[in-house]
Amino acid sequence: MREVEVTMGQIGGLRCRECSKEYDPSLRYVCEECFGPLDVFYDYDAIKVTPETFAPRDKTMWRYFELLPLSSLSSVVNLWQGFTPLHRSKRLAAKLGLRELYLKNDSVNPTFSFKDRPAGVGVSRALELELKAIGCASTGNLAAATAAHAAVAGLPCYVFIPVGLELPKVAQALTYGPRIVEVEGDYDDANRLAAQAADAFNIGVLNINLRPYYVEGSKTLAFEVAEQLGWEQPDHVIVPVGSGAMLHSICKGFEELRSVGLLDEIRVKVSAAQGQGCAPIVDAFKRGLNEVIPVENPDTVAKSLAIGEPGDGLYALKKVRKYNGYAEEASDKEIVDAIRLLAETEGIFTEPAGGVSVAVLKKMVDDGKIGRDEKVVCYITGNGLKTPEVVLESLPRPIVVKPDLEVLAPYITGR
Amino acid sequence: MREVEVTMGQIGGLRCRECSKEYDPSLRYVCEECFGPLDVFYDYDAIKVTPETFAPRDKTMWRYFELLPLSSLSSVVNLWQGFTPLHRSKRLAAKLGLRELYLKNDSVNPTFSFKDRPAGVGVSRALELELKAIGCASTGNLAAATAAHAAVAGLPCYVFIPVGLELPKVAQALTYGPRIVEVEGDYDDANRLAAQAADAFNIGVLNINLRPYYVEGSKTLAFEVAEQLGWEQPDHVIVPVGSGAMLHSICKGFEELRSVGLLDEIRVKVSAAQGQGCAPIVDAFKRGLNEVIPVENPDTVAKSLAIGEPGDGLYALKKVRKYNGYAEEASDKEIVDAIRLLAETEGIFTEPAGGVSVAVLKKMVDDGKIGRDEKVVCYITGNGLKTPEVVLESLPRPIVVKPDLEVLAPYITGR
Repeated sequence: MREVEVTMGQIGGLRCRECSKEYDPSLRYVCEECFGPLDVFYDYDAIKVTPETFAPRDKTMWRYFELLPLSSLSSVVNLWQGFTPLHRSKRLAAKLGLRELYLKNDSVNPTFSFKDRPAGVGVSRALELELKAIGCASTGNLAAATAAHAAVAGLPCYVFIPVGLELPKVAQALTYGPRIVEVEGDYDDANRLAAQAADAFNIGVLNINLRPYYVEGSKTLAFEVAEQLGWEQPDHVIVPVGSGAMLHSICKGFEELRSVGLLDEIRVKVSAAQGQGCAPIVDAFKRGLNEVIPVENPDTVAKSLAIGEPGDGLYALKKVRKYNGYAEEASDKEIVDAIRLLAETEGIFTEPAGGVSVAVLKKMVDDGKIGRDEKVVCYITGNGLKTPEVVLESLPRPIVVKPDLEVLAPYITGR
Repeated sequence: MREVEVTMGQIGGLRCRECSKEYDPSLRYVCEECFGPLDVFYDYDAIKVTPETFAPRDKTMWRYFELLPLSSLSSVVNLWQGFTPLHRSKRLAAKLGLRELYLKNDSVNPTFSFKDRPAGVGVSRALELELKAIGCASTGNLAAATAAHAAVAGLPCYVFIPVGLELPKVAQALTYGPRIVEVEGDYDDANRLAAQAADAFNIGVLNINLRPYYVEGSKTLAFEVAEQLGWEQPDHVIVPVGSGAMLHSICKGFEELRSVGLLDEIRVKVSAAQGQGCAPIVDAFKRGLNEVIPVENPDTVAKSLAIGEPGDGLYALKKVRKYNGYAEEASDKEIVDAIRLLAETEGIFTEPAGGVSVAVLKKMVDDGKIGRDEKVVCYITGNGLKTPEVVLESLPRPIVVKPDLEVLAPYITGR
């Protein structure tokens, strides 16, 4: 990437989300006092940025360097992620009856999901913290993003997965050359072993001990939308929710743009979308609860969102309420229909998480929760090539014909 | 996309590649006089462009509008394709012993291959020619690109495929909502029926009657590389070759940049890469032939390049000779190894065609056909998620462990 002039040292440190205790920006992720999660904060007053600061830079997420938790641009492990297209929808908008709809298309990131954003920041920060290996517990998008960034950084990588996963599902991740550790147990066992390994062997596990840095990458989903709309907020964003971390980060992104003077008072509404069968945040929202009750046996076609006990669930719920959004769920059929609707109208092929966004968008427009004049952004976070089996059964079968124009004719002319 | 000020009417027309007879830019693809193929030409003297012309425009291939065969910017069917990253290689370059290696990563195009470039131009031109339907004969990347663009344009789309193809292979294309016409016969039968349908029903079939416009899209692979290198030519490009059309178009792209004054005399060497088992152009090159002898039964893991009788084969061969390149082939094992090498060093997951490029690059460096100080660009034209089965068998199996740190330890520490 082109060299960018930056002022270093804007990272203020880590701050507990619960008790506000502050720490230096080291390899630490839980508050010593209250066990709350830690977030990165910055010296916002010291960050002097204007739209012109970013304009000449490469169109990747790294253009927002001043608001990412890195000390030096030279640490960046760059796969050219981010600054993905913000499609102005014509046909889908018309079908839904919306005046101004945008689709943020993260299916074209380097490893084909939004996870390249947090993984890129996490692995870059791992280099700054002088860690000698990288890891994650994941069965999907995060595994691929982690392994690819570790490959570019030249660091060993350990991907922890539960036993019994079909190998083709991890073919992409495996190709980047990590060690895949198949743990005899379920996802929780894999996650627990990853956490233990992080401590024992000084491995930077993205979604565990590097989590405060890692989650910062997803803020760029807010930064880019604001810049792509000409440094304006949308009226409403629809965010697919698994752990809740991405939604929380997107909100932090908008808040930080305000902190550095690039946006006025936040007025964007933030809505959460989940798959029926694993919608604990939707459930809490609808029932007006102040806790997120775990789902014992997640059952949704949107497997990348199927986190029964979402780590940031309560924080995501609070943000949805704070920003006047809604939480809504989509059934498997609605998700598959939405994947097809998006492809048929906008030429974007997404995995189920993107289908959840579009299905919930449709439902909210139908229910009047989104006004037809609202400027809406729908986040499409991953690539349909990862889950072709999800749509396959629902698709119309081919027409079978002999190689003869007369046999073909009625299918074309309808006569 | 943002409105761009353009001067219209630079398309000169169509010109026969053999006898130079000229035609107006209508729906025509074969010379009436000599049956040669037709190419689009422009009024190059009338095209006033400088690097500053393009700099402020959206980072898609449409930024080169003056050199694309469209009358109006409003015809553009924009999926935000092109201006894909040009990765400056670190680890792969070091492994191969090259000083300056770049990877042009078209795996992140909207339908995940370079075909979004020609398909975008072809479908946009079909709108200008007032065609009422779109089609193609394809089993892979072109099918997806065509169907997606037809979807965004709101035009019916017919994708002709030979009978017996596995449905999961066309799941992506099917999701965009085309009619898939399964022709009882082989690929040639499907292609022939598509050609007949093009004439009979006024369908714009991208790789047949829209071909002169369609192939123009691939020129942007040259335009972008030149711009991304600061309006310089590389010393050497490695191009995967199936029909030969893309290589021919890339050369036309460099030639046109010279015609409008953006490049000096062409000095880039252009080399062709094919899979062993379907390498008729390599064969002709090595044997010094002036014809391309068809391969009866193509047999290579690089199925997207497995065209036994390449339509533009002889023209591609001539360009390789004109531009002092080489033609080289890669075995299935070399292709798979190269896919893995690219992923392990650069975090780019490609389909076999990209593996062919990298494998041939490696071979040519080893053979001294590429100098270690040459500035080399290797074209990576498609996405590995389309062909996970190709690498799967070769990948190391996971380590299986109990959820116990002591069991895991030796795998991490090596002790």
